[in-house]
Amino acid sequence: MITAMNKEIIPDNWYNVVPDLPEPLAPPRDSKSDISSINLLNKILPKEVLKQEFTFKRYEKIPDEVMEAYEQIGRPTPLIRAKNLEKKLGYSGKIYYKYEGATATGSHKINTAIPQAYYAMKEGVKGVTTETGAGQWGSATALAASLYGLPSQIFMVKISFEQKPLRKTVMNLYNGNVVASPSTLTAYGRKILKEHPDTPGTLGIGISEAVEYALDNDYRYMVASVMNVSLTHQSVIGQETKKQLELIGEHADVLIGCVGGGSNFGGFTFPFIPDGDDTEIIATTANEVPKFSKGDYKYDLMDSAGILPQVRMYSLGADFVPPTIYAGGLRYHGASPSLSLLINKGRIKSDEVTEEEVKEALRTFANTQGIIAAPESGHAIASAIKYVKAHINEKKTIVVNVSGHGYLDLSIFGEKK
Amino acid sequence: MITAMNKEIIPDNWYNVVPDLPEPLAPPRDSKSDISSINLLNKILPKEVLKQEFTFKRYEKIPDEVMEAYEQIGRPTPLIRAKNLEKKLGYSGKIYYKYEGATATGSHKINTAIPQAYYAMKEGVKGVTTETGAGQWGSATALAASLYGLPSQIFMVKISFEQKPLRKTVMNLYNGNVVASPSTLTAYGRKILKEHPDTPGTLGIGISEAVEYALDNDYRYMVASVMNVSLTHQSVIGQETKKQLELIGEHADVLIGCVGGGSNFGGFTFPFIPDGDDTEIIATTANEVPKFSKGDYKYDLMDSAGILPQVRMYSLGADFVPPTIYAGGLRYHGASPSLSLLINKGRIKSDEVTEEEVKEALRTFANTQGIIAAPESGHAIASAIKYVKAHINEKKTIVVNVSGHGYLDLSIFGEKK
Repeated sequence: MITAMNKEIIPDNWYNVVPDLPEPLAPPRDSKSDISSINLLNKILPKEVLKQEFTFKRYEKIPDEVMEAYEQIGRPTPLIRAKNLEKKLGYSGKIYYKYEGATATGSHKINTAIPQAYYAMKEGVKGVTTETGAGQWGSATALAASLYGLPSQIFMVKISFEQKPLRKTVMNLYNGNVVASPSTLTAYGRKILKEHPDTPGTLGIGISEAVEYALDNDYRYMVASVMNVSLTHQSVIGQETKKQLELIGEHADVLIGCVGGGSNFGGFTFPFIPDGDDTEIIATTANEVPKFSKGDYKYDLMDSAGILPQVRMYSLGADFVPPTIYAGGLRYHGASPSLSLLINKGRIKSDEVTEEEVKEALRTFANTQGIIAAPESGHAIASAIKYVKAHINEKKTIVVNVSGHGYLDLSIFGEKK
Repeated sequence: MITAMNKEIIPDNWYNVVPDLPEPLAPPRDSKSDISSINLLNKILPKEVLKQEFTFKRYEKIPDEVMEAYEQIGRPTPLIRAKNLEKKLGYSGKIYYKYEGATATGSHKINTAIPQAYYAMKEGVKGVTTETGAGQWGSATALAASLYGLPSQIFMVKISFEQKPLRKTVMNLYNGNVVASPSTLTAYGRKILKEHPDTPGTLGIGISEAVEYALDNDYRYMVASVMNVSLTHQSVIGQETKKQLELIGEHADVLIGCVGGGSNFGGFTFPFIPDGDDTEIIATTANEVPKFSKGDYKYDLMDSAGILPQVRMYSLGADFVPPTIYAGGLRYHGASPSLSLLINKGRIKSDEVTEEEVKEALRTFANTQGIIAAPESGHAIASAIKYVKAHINEKKTIVVNVSGHGYLDLSIFGEKK
């Protein structure tokens, strides 16, 4: 049982945008001819997660145990009016921010890690496994597994494992087992290590290792983003935001979020889709990863290794490598199929911001609102500031999703450009 | 105007324990014979802060602008039932934690920094200044000053300045000017640098520099802890906790907090004092800083340099140097006079925990509740776990103050003891 006050704000159901899309979603395709990557999903995902990935149902009841875990990790997260920022910008409209950095793991990732680990536990598996880059997803996976008494095996891209030792510390504090990938724990990892002993690792290698580890050890694979089920779980963000706005008598004229794979963005904005077109929705990417303006809308690999199925999405190509690494969570080459479709149909607009705009926005947000936001979330803030400056005389209500805090990314302010 | 929902929980007034103490508080004394340190306070503190330091009034109205700033930086902070921790400990009672780590600067320090900077701004001064050790207080000062458009000059103990560059980054993001102390900005700093060029610096040197800087530049000095006014401002913590408990129909049987100078502890527990004796209150220190068990209750210097007045308190001696530095905020040699009196009269009990117990408690709290608590707050959690184990069959409601998060202290888990 959660408290009455929280029950008023945390939704009872997850919202799935699929039935409300302007046209049916293109189905996933096998990535390789010799092995069915769609059949593979049957083996590596908990049954309930697989069901939710392909469902056409608009609502899915959140199990009581998951509801309670959401409350334990800090939900509902706050929706705060950024009065100091408004003043600094000389804006006569309103700016609100939803702060997912207030969750226990410091980002939105925990919202889908919890139900995935819960369903894995219910199905009696031995543990959960996944890959992680910068470590946000690995942290969420480790904590979620710990909450349900499951071990977790996390394959962390080797270069990040070496450069971000504190993320490893966090995962260890959450009872996670973390190895640098490629590792000696899998045949695939050992093969790569033999052929390329000095490789920095990639997310593709990490996914391959996690999938092999899941198959060999009766573990289940945890899905970070891109796939529909993760966006559905993240819908707690947008549903809470709607309820919080309703309680203070506000209506969102503009929603702005950042896009890596699309899970914080979809979770934040999709619950507003069935309400009609009077809320403007803006998806912001890094200037260096211009998936919506320069990517193609096509079938492409979800992961560079081609383990997971192909999906139809905006993509810069699965082998795309952006130039800088200051916002690790936004480096992904594509975007969730449902988000891609809504962009393609013009319901959601896109924006791009530069590293310089992001750093300036992070500084401004810190010295006005006090929040040290994650570099990824800094893109949403920078985009909101751009919007305000371009519409300074309009009195709109803008809501920005600040998807995580940046306490473990402070080093970006120490470097010279 | 703050929102109705928050107005229900954030108190309208600060609570001052002085009129409710079992006997009058011993007055402060000058520390040196040649200069009146009490007169000095008149010159370096905002008038309103000085008035609140020596008031006998039970309640002081929180100005609307401060109320609004409290909301902006994340008040009310959450009170969460630690169900996963209860389960892990096999406790049939209840454990709640109040989470001050959820404020924008990540600790309770901002609760008094805001009103002090506000009063300084109202009085038209040029800026604010203070000393900081690990950097938590400096961060709170910098943000509070930024919120009211004031510059801040922060003297950071040189060894910490060098060892904790990320804290400096945070202060800079909050518009704070930070220098290593001793610095060349003051005559006192230049003198020390000439005599001891390799000194690691001390809080005493930092205080001396900040006081000189305030006097020479029409700045005001910001008081971190120990002095009564800071505990009064921190009473928002305990008053919110009482209200939040009331809203869910709970009564606190036991309150546990950690003690450095006493501000988070006093702020959390003192609002329960006028309600009578049926709430047990426990003040926990580090085993290495046994001020209540091995200190004397006597007049002693507040700061090693003897700049500020002497007060009657439990003290290990102003030149006490604890052996380890893993919890910088608990290294202080004394404790606030009002807290010391309540300990001396037996109304508040004390406890001590070891570094090993603290690290274990931090791990347990992380992998059950997901919160990476500050090492200082880890002492309160460790003490609560000890209490539960010693009273495993009682069904009490225990409330712990988790005064800050530990994202910038993760390195303590990397070191070998």
